[in-house]
Amino acid sequence: MNIKLATTITLSLALGAGAVFADGHSKALEGAVKARQGQMQLYSHNLGILGAMAKGQMDYDSGAAQAAADNLMALSSLDAASMWPQGSDNSLEGSRAKPEIWTTFPEIATKAKAMSDAAAAMAAAAGTDLASLQGAMGPLGGACGSCHKAYRSR
Amino acid sequence: MNIKLATTITLSLALGAGAVFADGHSKALEGAVKARQGQMQLYSHNLGILGAMAKGQMDYDSGAAQAAADNLMALSSLDAASMWPQGSDNSLEGSRAKPEIWTTFPEIATKAKAMSDAAAAMAAAAGTDLASLQGAMGPLGGACGSCHKAYRSR
Repeated sequence: MNIKLATTITLSLALGAGAVFADGHSKALEGAVKARQGQMQLYSHNLGILGAMAKGQMDYDSGAAQAAADNLMALSSLDAASMWPQGSDNSLEGSRAKPEIWTTFPEIATKAKAMSDAAAAMAAAAGTDLASLQGAMGPLGGACGSCHKAYRSR
Repeated sequence: MNIKLATTITLSLALGAGAVFADGHSKALEGAVKARQGQMQLYSHNLGILGAMAKGQMDYDSGAAQAAADNLMALSSLDAASMWPQGSDNSLEGSRAKPEIWTTFPEIATKAKAMSDAAAAMAAAAGTDLASLQGAMGPLGGACGSCHKAYRSR
């Protein structure tokens, strides 16, 4: 995941956004923002299910917990290159992505790897029992927050 | 995928939406709609890349094509149960999902399986060459359209 992400983001930086779509630079950037926001929505949905179970707001259900954790795993495996073209930052309306994502690259790849690892740990724990799920929540929430804190504007 | 989807959608029908979240029935339904729209956004983004290459609007790039196809595969593997609770249809503002999705269930599982199969065929073809990618586009677009035609209101 680390190497793959680094490779694909490097590819994205090399390509630049304008080359990705023939129908215009800004439309390509907006499309990329929408796609990754879709990914965030899916992260949020599945994390919300696990969080609600962890907090006792929803009855623990082994199958539903496993499904949500597996979804997080699959989502964290998505190739990110086409969704993060250079320039698709918070200079665009609707994006809170700090330009530091690109200027400090590949630092963000380390955080992406942490997220992927935390999702894998959750997938190994979520279906076992509530205590295991609860134990995996902290690192997973921490991995989300780590990236948002560093790279998402308020 | 077929059995898994059928199982998970059955689970969703059995649970009903209201039981899934503690913070209210309508909020749970809206959250489910947002999540699956996120998934559709991601489908659209990755299919757009493949479609642009197929049409010659974007230069064929083996790595980028493979990445987009692999993303489609991963997206089609997501467990759908929590995103399609009964009642999350076009009676909600912002959703175009016809109630027939639930009344004709499990017919939709057949279409989901066709989508998954078409994504797998694209993943096997996209990185080979442009002609192979182009050959896999028809079935993939057809699988998307088949479900939208039957189950999405205009």
